[in-house]
Amino acid sequence: MSPIARGNPGGVERAEFRRELAQQLRVDSIRSSSAAGSGHPTSSMSAAELMAVLLDGHLRMDVTRPDHPGNDHLIFSKGHASPLLYSCLKAAGAIDDAELMTFREFGSRMEGHPTPVLPWVDVATGSLGQGLPIGVGLGLTLSRLDELPGRVWVLCGDSEMAEGSIWEAFEHAAYYGLDNVVALIDVNRLGQTGETMHGWDLSAYSDRARAIGWHTVEVDGHDPDRVEEALTEAENTLGRPTAVVARTVKGKGVSEVENLTGKHGKPVADEQAAISELGGNRDLGVTVSAPESTARARTFEVPGGQLPVFETGSSVATRKAYGQALRALGSRRGDIVALDGEVSNSTHSEQFREGHPERYFEMYIAEQQMLATAVGMQVRGWRPFASTFAAFLTRAYDFIRMAAVSRADLCLMGSHAGVAIGEDGPSQMALEDLAALRAVHGSTVLYPCDANQTARLLEPMADLRGISYLRASRGASPVIYGPEEQFPVGGSKTVRDGDHVTLVGAGVTLHESLEAADRLAAEGIRARVIDLYSVKPVDSATLDAAARETAGLVTVEDHWPEGGLGDAVLASLAETGASTAVRKLAVSRMPGSGKPEELLEQAGIDAGAIATAARSLLR
Amino acid sequence: MSPIARGNPGGVERAEFRRELAQQLRVDSIRSSSAAGSGHPTSSMSAAELMAVLLDGHLRMDVTRPDHPGNDHLIFSKGHASPLLYSCLKAAGAIDDAELMTFREFGSRMEGHPTPVLPWVDVATGSLGQGLPIGVGLGLTLSRLDELPGRVWVLCGDSEMAEGSIWEAFEHAAYYGLDNVVALIDVNRLGQTGETMHGWDLSAYSDRARAIGWHTVEVDGHDPDRVEEALTEAENTLGRPTAVVARTVKGKGVSEVENLTGKHGKPVADEQAAISELGGNRDLGVTVSAPESTARARTFEVPGGQLPVFETGSSVATRKAYGQALRALGSRRGDIVALDGEVSNSTHSEQFREGHPERYFEMYIAEQQMLATAVGMQVRGWRPFASTFAAFLTRAYDFIRMAAVSRADLCLMGSHAGVAIGEDGPSQMALEDLAALRAVHGSTVLYPCDANQTARLLEPMADLRGISYLRASRGASPVIYGPEEQFPVGGSKTVRDGDHVTLVGAGVTLHESLEAADRLAAEGIRARVIDLYSVKPVDSATLDAAARETAGLVTVEDHWPEGGLGDAVLASLAETGASTAVRKLAVSRMPGSGKPEELLEQAGIDAGAIATAARSLLR
Repeated sequence: MSPIARGNPGGVERAEFRRELAQQLRVDSIRSSSAAGSGHPTSSMSAAELMAVLLDGHLRMDVTRPDHPGNDHLIFSKGHASPLLYSCLKAAGAIDDAELMTFREFGSRMEGHPTPVLPWVDVATGSLGQGLPIGVGLGLTLSRLDELPGRVWVLCGDSEMAEGSIWEAFEHAAYYGLDNVVALIDVNRLGQTGETMHGWDLSAYSDRARAIGWHTVEVDGHDPDRVEEALTEAENTLGRPTAVVARTVKGKGVSEVENLTGKHGKPVADEQAAISELGGNRDLGVTVSAPESTARARTFEVPGGQLPVFETGSSVATRKAYGQALRALGSRRGDIVALDGEVSNSTHSEQFREGHPERYFEMYIAEQQMLATAVGMQVRGWRPFASTFAAFLTRAYDFIRMAAVSRADLCLMGSHAGVAIGEDGPSQMALEDLAALRAVHGSTVLYPCDANQTARLLEPMADLRGISYLRASRGASPVIYGPEEQFPVGGSKTVRDGDHVTLVGAGVTLHESLEAADRLAAEGIRARVIDLYSVKPVDSATLDAAARETAGLVTVEDHWPEGGLGDAVLASLAETGASTAVRKLAVSRMPGSGKPEELLEQAGIDAGAIATAARSLLR
Repeated sequence: MSPIARGNPGGVERAEFRRELAQQLRVDSIRSSSAAGSGHPTSSMSAAELMAVLLDGHLRMDVTRPDHPGNDHLIFSKGHASPLLYSCLKAAGAIDDAELMTFREFGSRMEGHPTPVLPWVDVATGSLGQGLPIGVGLGLTLSRLDELPGRVWVLCGDSEMAEGSIWEAFEHAAYYGLDNVVALIDVNRLGQTGETMHGWDLSAYSDRARAIGWHTVEVDGHDPDRVEEALTEAENTLGRPTAVVARTVKGKGVSEVENLTGKHGKPVADEQAAISELGGNRDLGVTVSAPESTARARTFEVPGGQLPVFETGSSVATRKAYGQALRALGSRRGDIVALDGEVSNSTHSEQFREGHPERYFEMYIAEQQMLATAVGMQVRGWRPFASTFAAFLTRAYDFIRMAAVSRADLCLMGSHAGVAIGEDGPSQMALEDLAALRAVHGSTVLYPCDANQTARLLEPMADLRGISYLRASRGASPVIYGPEEQFPVGGSKTVRDGDHVTLVGAGVTLHESLEAADRLAAEGIRARVIDLYSVKPVDSATLDAAARETAGLVTVEDHWPEGGLGDAVLASLAETGASTAVRKLAVSRMPGSGKPEELLEQAGIDAGAIATAARSLLR
């Protein structure tokens, strides 16, 4: 079937059209989830009028051109209401009914929760409390980078308002005065297991939002006229974002499920009765308003320039090289933007801020919002580099995981890796970051040991697909590579030749490995030293050759034993079928404070420990 | 030196004593950080009067008995103000000056950020935004579990108020009416790199807090009399928590650093001048008020009972077995408590709630607060089991990481592992949880494949030190073990003998491995099948034997290839020196929605893929 009506009647018929459209959205949510045998129709039904009114006269989008720069953006932060989203897309003519009815089937674009396999979906949702932060990031992008007129509409559930990431989004949207962001909060009172913390107390949400600086409108979410007023008010509010706090009823319109607990996340029991109660199947089409046809995104002119060069033999922290190189990269590419979690003088992203203040965004100590903003920026084609202490990227791990589901292309830099940071102690030491970032689908993990290598890695990093991560060190380390060296992603450097035993390190442990090789050389032991700066993907050919040509490998990492460099080497050897002895050195006890060299020694990852392990392989 | 005055003068001298004490705390913060050559004296100096007044007449603590049940608790959420904390401990007679001056030295208890190696420190801080949530968890514990009179005082920085976890803490403290929680917000205006989002706008903090339901007091944080009034007001406020929002000056009292940017996280340049400006070194002692000597924590009487038994051959989801077994365990042990992130009907922790409503705590969709509460509960000796979808534990990864630094003993359960969940799609699929949880120091990772195994694993889990994690599955799986089977942590089960090739699985892939073994048997291939239910620690002896006795191992996991079961096996084999071929099967492409069996097949981790890999090893 194809929509029988397209084009919205005006005047007195409009409210009736919207009521009918809302009922259709309910019916289609029920039909699709019943066909699938799973899904969230009741969570969809509560927001039907909110979406009907939004589609009819407020959302501005060329559905034939999902990438039109003038488009508004619609994010379902309550991603489980996917039946409603897909029903909206059908009503707007973006997809047809046949596709809608493939909901949750293998290979269908109608996934259980929305992902960007659908071109009208900017980002994946389904982990609650992420859509609004990303929407705020996108609003910031449209406002401060693109200078585009589009608006970001975010449908939020009331349950997800308990997520701290929502606070971060509220704070940042207010701080940056984002009047292009509208949160539609679907207060249907019921979560998955029972009543939410605040039930139908709309003021619980609007008081908080106003205290933070948002404009708020409380509204009966099932009255199209009131919703119309609220959306118009949001559109007319300048200088601050608006939250439309809508009182709604979960499962609205179907007595079997309406306002009842125990009806979350499952199809209705009696599909036909439910559809009858809603007035039967409909086939309305809605013409979504067109975007500004002339809208064109701003671009930044850049002067060009060279990446920094560091003198061989000098001593420079890789985090410092990162800052300088990122600034230089920003002078060559206008699409590069930088974000930091209020530690830009530690990560040295302050270098970028000084060079390109319009493209630097302070995210304060809100790592989840930092990631969300990066995800929002890459939606519009910008290439964000987000930096903080590597340990604190764990704060945003769910956002990183979901960014991969969003097929996001973005770059992360984590500084202050491992026990080598010294006196600040374990709370500041990233010792699980390699494991966590390797276990992100499609990720790249880089870990340079010197300043020139860091600078040279940034350039390919800025073109990588997916989530790429660069691990940087706090302390200064000797520059061992000349500026002419190339460091392909997936490569490695054999920095010392040898045929007795192989030492594999990266970052600080590469330098410890070189020192160990010196000590071993004094004993007549020829150690090969491999700089495994690309931890994922890993240079399997070089590792395989080392396994075949030497008596064994010592891997050494400033990281817990699990999931890091050593495990990457073992997995590579297993894959190529190279059979050799491997001694994995890693941090295995909880460190305290101390000098870097004391902590490296205690952890058993310093030159002495490496040499001992190498000798044991040769025994 | 030893304190020259102990015992606080009353009356007119009191304000002067407190001013002097505050100056001493400043001087000692400067002395210790100067001796260390690093640290955060300026962040310590802003809160000196807050702490001086707290110590003198408000904090109730027997410093000779840090575990006294009647004690108040003091948490430095701004953990970088550790010099202030340690200076307080010295003034209170808990430590001496010599120990204070070992700040940040290798082996010292005076770590860069506080950890529980000091008995007066309940939990590690230093990752901002965690101390308040944990304090709220501890307040809930004292109020609802222990029924103890102690108060929880949390010193917060203003920068960390940007963390979403702070919102979660505010929300939960208000929701649970925790009048035993007092947040002291040290609004010194300056973050690490510059001014905070809100500068000295105290109302930005107090408006938000009041909107959420807290009592608030705005105060000049350097006026002991005003601080005295504020703390008294907090103590007299019933039914809701209090936030003391204190206007302070970073680096207060030393002109070299006072209220200046660029002075964060470093010793003062001129120590002697700074100390002189503060009036010189002092050696005051303060007698902290005694706790209620008769305070005694509540315990729960339990009826006892047996763990549930599931019929061999029946089909039961491991998440369901978890819920039933946890309820049974709660009937045997009064110290067991359960928390859930508003998915208790999915994790089946609702079973525990029904059986033990006083020991179940709904954390709503706030996973960080869930972890923080668990950390707070174990401070007081309770054994929390916290559950949500395994994918959403990533939201709290920084809290899990820090819980290990806190030496916390707690149990996590993550349900809905892997692509086997089916239609809900990738946002709900945990595919990185094994990697993330393995890479937590001292952690235990369990992954049962059947209901009896799940139930039997809970008992030892409840006695483990550190963070233990149980991965549970959404779908029902056949019960293959009888109720008499034992499953030691660190063990495995060889469920099928064979000497040709070895299949290693856990959870859903164990069943796929058994099916593969059947198919291989039909071809005359004798496959050994190992149930690696203990992913960390791993049963090295059994894996080593399999490597030596069969032609190779196929590992198979419903997880990304990095850091999970396969890597655990490879690391074990490398350690025992067993040399064999290993084929690692794991999920290597982004899944969508579909039936579990479709997704297992697409991922290449079903019986067919396992059999193919086994055959290839024998070729």
